[in-house]
Amino acid sequence: MSEAREFKYIGQRTIRPDGYDKVTGRANYGADLSLPGMIWGKILRSPHAHANIKNIDLSKAQAHPDVLAIATYQDFPHVQSEAFQAGEVPTDIIDLARNVLADDKVLYHGHAIAAIAARSESAAQDALSLIEVEYEVLPPVMDVADAMKPEAAVLHNNMFTQGLAEPADKASNIASRMELKKGDVAAGFALADLVVERDFYTPTVHQGYIEPHATTVRFEENGQAMVWCSTQGHFDVRASTAKLLNMPLGKLKVVASEIGGGFGGKTTVYLEPVALILSRKSGKPVKMVMTRDEVFRASGPGSATRSHVKIGAMKDGTITAMQASLCFEAGAFKGSPMGPGCMTVFTPYDVENMYIEGYDVVVNKPKVAAYRAPGAPQAEFAAEMVINEIASKLGIDPIELRLRNAAKEGTQTVYGPKLKRVGLVECLEAAKNSPQYQSALKANQGRGLAAGFWFNIGGLSSVTINMNPDGSGTILEGSPDIGGSRASMQMMAAEELGIPIDQLKPLVADTEHVAYNATTGGSRTTFATGMAVIEAAQDVVRQLKERAAAVWNITAEQVDWADGVAINTTGDDRLTVAEICKDAEKTGGQIAGTGNINARGAGPSFAVHLCDVEVDPDTGKVDVIRYTAIQDAGKAIHPSYVEGQYQGGAAQGIGWALNEEYIYNKDGIMENAGFLDYRIPLASDLPMIETVIIEIPNSFHPFGVRGVGETGIVPPLAAVATAVSEAIGVVMTDLPCSPPRVLAAIHGKS
Amino acid sequence: MSEAREFKYIGQRTIRPDGYDKVTGRANYGADLSLPGMIWGKILRSPHAHANIKNIDLSKAQAHPDVLAIATYQDFPHVQSEAFQAGEVPTDIIDLARNVLADDKVLYHGHAIAAIAARSESAAQDALSLIEVEYEVLPPVMDVADAMKPEAAVLHNNMFTQGLAEPADKASNIASRMELKKGDVAAGFALADLVVERDFYTPTVHQGYIEPHATTVRFEENGQAMVWCSTQGHFDVRASTAKLLNMPLGKLKVVASEIGGGFGGKTTVYLEPVALILSRKSGKPVKMVMTRDEVFRASGPGSATRSHVKIGAMKDGTITAMQASLCFEAGAFKGSPMGPGCMTVFTPYDVENMYIEGYDVVVNKPKVAAYRAPGAPQAEFAAEMVINEIASKLGIDPIELRLRNAAKEGTQTVYGPKLKRVGLVECLEAAKNSPQYQSALKANQGRGLAAGFWFNIGGLSSVTINMNPDGSGTILEGSPDIGGSRASMQMMAAEELGIPIDQLKPLVADTEHVAYNATTGGSRTTFATGMAVIEAAQDVVRQLKERAAAVWNITAEQVDWADGVAINTTGDDRLTVAEICKDAEKTGGQIAGTGNINARGAGPSFAVHLCDVEVDPDTGKVDVIRYTAIQDAGKAIHPSYVEGQYQGGAAQGIGWALNEEYIYNKDGIMENAGFLDYRIPLASDLPMIETVIIEIPNSFHPFGVRGVGETGIVPPLAAVATAVSEAIGVVMTDLPCSPPRVLAAIHGKS
Repeated sequence: MSEAREFKYIGQRTIRPDGYDKVTGRANYGADLSLPGMIWGKILRSPHAHANIKNIDLSKAQAHPDVLAIATYQDFPHVQSEAFQAGEVPTDIIDLARNVLADDKVLYHGHAIAAIAARSESAAQDALSLIEVEYEVLPPVMDVADAMKPEAAVLHNNMFTQGLAEPADKASNIASRMELKKGDVAAGFALADLVVERDFYTPTVHQGYIEPHATTVRFEENGQAMVWCSTQGHFDVRASTAKLLNMPLGKLKVVASEIGGGFGGKTTVYLEPVALILSRKSGKPVKMVMTRDEVFRASGPGSATRSHVKIGAMKDGTITAMQASLCFEAGAFKGSPMGPGCMTVFTPYDVENMYIEGYDVVVNKPKVAAYRAPGAPQAEFAAEMVINEIASKLGIDPIELRLRNAAKEGTQTVYGPKLKRVGLVECLEAAKNSPQYQSALKANQGRGLAAGFWFNIGGLSSVTINMNPDGSGTILEGSPDIGGSRASMQMMAAEELGIPIDQLKPLVADTEHVAYNATTGGSRTTFATGMAVIEAAQDVVRQLKERAAAVWNITAEQVDWADGVAINTTGDDRLTVAEICKDAEKTGGQIAGTGNINARGAGPSFAVHLCDVEVDPDTGKVDVIRYTAIQDAGKAIHPSYVEGQYQGGAAQGIGWALNEEYIYNKDGIMENAGFLDYRIPLASDLPMIETVIIEIPNSFHPFGVRGVGETGIVPPLAAVATAVSEAIGVVMTDLPCSPPRVLAAIHGKS
Repeated sequence: MSEAREFKYIGQRTIRPDGYDKVTGRANYGADLSLPGMIWGKILRSPHAHANIKNIDLSKAQAHPDVLAIATYQDFPHVQSEAFQAGEVPTDIIDLARNVLADDKVLYHGHAIAAIAARSESAAQDALSLIEVEYEVLPPVMDVADAMKPEAAVLHNNMFTQGLAEPADKASNIASRMELKKGDVAAGFALADLVVERDFYTPTVHQGYIEPHATTVRFEENGQAMVWCSTQGHFDVRASTAKLLNMPLGKLKVVASEIGGGFGGKTTVYLEPVALILSRKSGKPVKMVMTRDEVFRASGPGSATRSHVKIGAMKDGTITAMQASLCFEAGAFKGSPMGPGCMTVFTPYDVENMYIEGYDVVVNKPKVAAYRAPGAPQAEFAAEMVINEIASKLGIDPIELRLRNAAKEGTQTVYGPKLKRVGLVECLEAAKNSPQYQSALKANQGRGLAAGFWFNIGGLSSVTINMNPDGSGTILEGSPDIGGSRASMQMMAAEELGIPIDQLKPLVADTEHVAYNATTGGSRTTFATGMAVIEAAQDVVRQLKERAAAVWNITAEQVDWADGVAINTTGDDRLTVAEICKDAEKTGGQIAGTGNINARGAGPSFAVHLCDVEVDPDTGKVDVIRYTAIQDAGKAIHPSYVEGQYQGGAAQGIGWALNEEYIYNKDGIMENAGFLDYRIPLASDLPMIETVIIEIPNSFHPFGVRGVGETGIVPPLAAVATAVSEAIGVVMTDLPCSPPRVLAAIHGKS
């Protein structure tokens, strides 16, 4: 990556290629496909948070004239077979099967038990009541702290804690423990002039994507099947669904519909395998669409956490030791983002001594899914709150404190690699110079600042670019576009090919029309799929040069390439992309290029957010009155979408900090499974979020791209909670800072 | 091409990959796509064969509440512009525009004048009567001989005969003349002991595809458009439609539906540009479906011809000279298959002296389209009838006469190249040895034999093969499958990759998901697209070897490949395709290969057909009682489909010989525009057609493929007419040999 490269298209604010389809309503989302002869599927869900299933009687439902098929866990016979369980990664698939349709136990309120396909949606819904389930209700385990107690009811009597020094001798709700360390924290704390430690809590929250899970599937007589669904990764839907249904990959085609939000929550399967079973049994296409209530109760929310963070610093602000214990709720099955939580919690800091332990713990809530920078917001919330408290107690400006300890090129991360060049210092400097940071606050107002880190991963991407005889082309990628990535791909290909952006049409192809692409997540798409686009474009350019060489009767090495033009270095000839493609039939057929990669490296990025709030001391209501999001994009391919990601991350983080939480009653029943009671921020709740794009090129990407989607949700939890704390004079350690909790804090203080 | 290659998959009779979709009705044909908000288009057609349009009054139609758009020729403004007309190939596009919607003149009964889009199909149909057209009726020119007379009414007053020794000085119905010659026919005829010459006539016939033309289109606000249609070549639909609508190629996506027959007739556009204009004007998706009546009157039938053939031979059967004059009807606009007619007429013969002239002539009939081996059946009919008459008059067996003069390796064709190894002699020997040829005939029966030749062209094909992590894959090709080519592609890729056939899924991709493919026609698909498949598979194998080399830490050159297995030549290691694909993420991402070619050469092939008929002397009805089709396939990839092509070609040729013809009244009105009156052969009309596959490898194709779809329609016309002639003792020079004409021949004789 040369920083000096001047871009022609990258960095422009172009029209998004999918815009018209979306504003006209032509774009087809998960529920928008209907097929001839299609029937409807509905799911019977558990009314209990924790219960053994003693018996399921399907006979009455089966007798219903409109019911054409019923699915239960018994329709995964191979998953239960010894051979399968002895095979590769069986546990994950068994858990997935048991989450999709409960085996002999329901593990959360809303857990799927059986599915019915009927001639109409209402008939399917009505017939659910004909299924008779006999339960043995068990005590629900609803909090990570309770779940970890030795006396807690155990969800899975075959689950033994992994990662302990000695093998566990009895079943536990703790799925695993991990530990990361560098240096010697005891020695570090000994050097400290000030040590602050606190407990923190973050609630179960939902990604709040507007589009519910929806799918239409067709299982065909010859064993072929098609799945249409709203997903962040249709290739991985294919992989897991094929495993659940014991199908060869090549028999299953998955088409990603347009997606109405995912934020990590659409990276697994709920309806798809069930719908396929119903379709296989009924011989008809089946459509299934979740209600909002089902989305809340039975998709994958973000983990609730309890953390303890302890940080020591010298008077001059030098941090000497950082220690954390992070307990993540996984929901009903193991697999919280505890790992990335541990890896990110202290990464903004270049500190010698660190010790982090993490616990992945099952509770009677829906199995968590990824949620934007999974694990990092919860973990870094705790760390940043303590950092701010240290700054306050030492009387050091929080930016200065962070600058003194900031991670930078060469910093040894606690999880492995040394950082290459990163932009945290530049973000902190930008925060210091921001109009917001210079502005004064009034009564009942407070200001919070926090840093945040996320990896931005690479991985597998495949891209094909097909050229047309007029020099235009299509870009086939396999990464569902959840944040404007089609525009990014278009711009990167245009840059590399040297042709105008509107000559290239980016398409998210199905699993049959492009080779494997990993799920859109980890902010990998513009980084990794972008690299595959660049490679495919380079493959096209290589061929264009060969074709020009053939026209000129010279070697390809004698052809230069600049700005979409082949240059004959042995003469004055020039050929444009359009000219070469037009005559491609004379030089060997039309041109297509491919790029297939497993992207090395990552795009580590940092953000710094500034939040000003005003607290109503009478009601405890918090208004965010000004907010600035500053983040290192590496290189902002399309600045408007980068800004949109910063703003979206901030908005979701503000919601998490201020209002959002799953509210359960004592029986483990969720009481606010709707957008009226689970309150995500509305436009009217927020000020215009100001953004600053920092561009410190990522050495792993040819254009310097980092990935921008996730880092922005990491700082808000601490930035907002610190601002509230400053406004009311009490450290807010538990989220959300909702009016009741803020009011209680104010009253507790007074 | 090594003849010794042993095939593992090629040559098997596998299950066709599209079979289930077709027998279950799941396959979607031209009329099967409906879109939200879709409206219907219908076309107003000329009631006259030849007339000037004095005025079109759209006002009443426009006022109809259900009418949302009207299209006329005025909607092609750029086609009329001077700039466009000065550009590249303007005439063809102007003719196409004027065929799609008439300008100031209607040129055949059924010629499109205007199109209406309305909220329902019936409203569109009803509103057509509100369009008021004022005509000046002109005398129709309905026969090629009449059209060529100096006094004939002229269809196009700006059309001057091309190809004359001196430029034409006045407009004519003769669009062009061409001439092919070798040696000196005068000298050749001087050597002859016997010269036979005759005039021949073949009628206008239709391909008779069961599925009418149908399309659904959507023109979008941002200038993008989508066309779904039944076509043999969606890339060429894109090219011509984009030109007619003045759109960039990259804005127009064309999807080929499943196709219910084409036979050459679905290689151009009728409805698609009109529907797009209606969609652009109305802002809604538009569907248009032709009735059978419209298909007959206004799609592209096969040329009627009048020919004169003169052949001289010595007593021993050596042919000394061959001469032909071939007059082809082009229909309303220039462009009959006169060229291939001239090129093929005598190609089965290795004769020193040949002279052929051809005329392309416009008449007041629908513009002809390609029809299976376009031009060859009509031309070779005339030649083969004369050859058979010579055999009869010289008392030489018609097979022996042909063997004495048969084209073979090294024969100089009249149109250019020398033949490489071909299979005519082998076909003739097979005919001689066939059970049918050994069998005896009874009273009122006759036997006819004829040879036939077709080129089987190459051209542009692009293919992508995407591998899956389990070692299965998809083959993306862009050639609509009109004869089982998906199976061929699947088998060729399996052969090259060394993996089972059912591991590969062949897909006909739309214009955006694969690079340019020429239209399925000329029997090019299995030959040329097959070569692109093989190249793409070789590209995959190359990468598989590289990946295996990476695993083994050796160079790709140290890896051998055999039967789907990579072999470490420096050790004992082996890796299968599935193993390499499974671990592809560790070696650089998943694997995709491309093959983009302009296939060199062709697959010249010969056929010999044997026909036995019985004639009812009282009614003139002819029954085909036995039929054998013998043809050189080069290499039969899937023998069942090869046989099916032989049988289909024979069946269509028998229909052409016995019953099919456009019947016009004196005003040029077609009187039999339906399958009851235009009688194609039914299953009950035909015996089981026996087939013999000859396999003489084509040196241009790695597996030896020639192409098998078209040659089989060339011999039947002469084989059947000769059999009828033999049965009744009168040479039948005019087709069809329908009962009235056969009866007249019998009565003329007696």
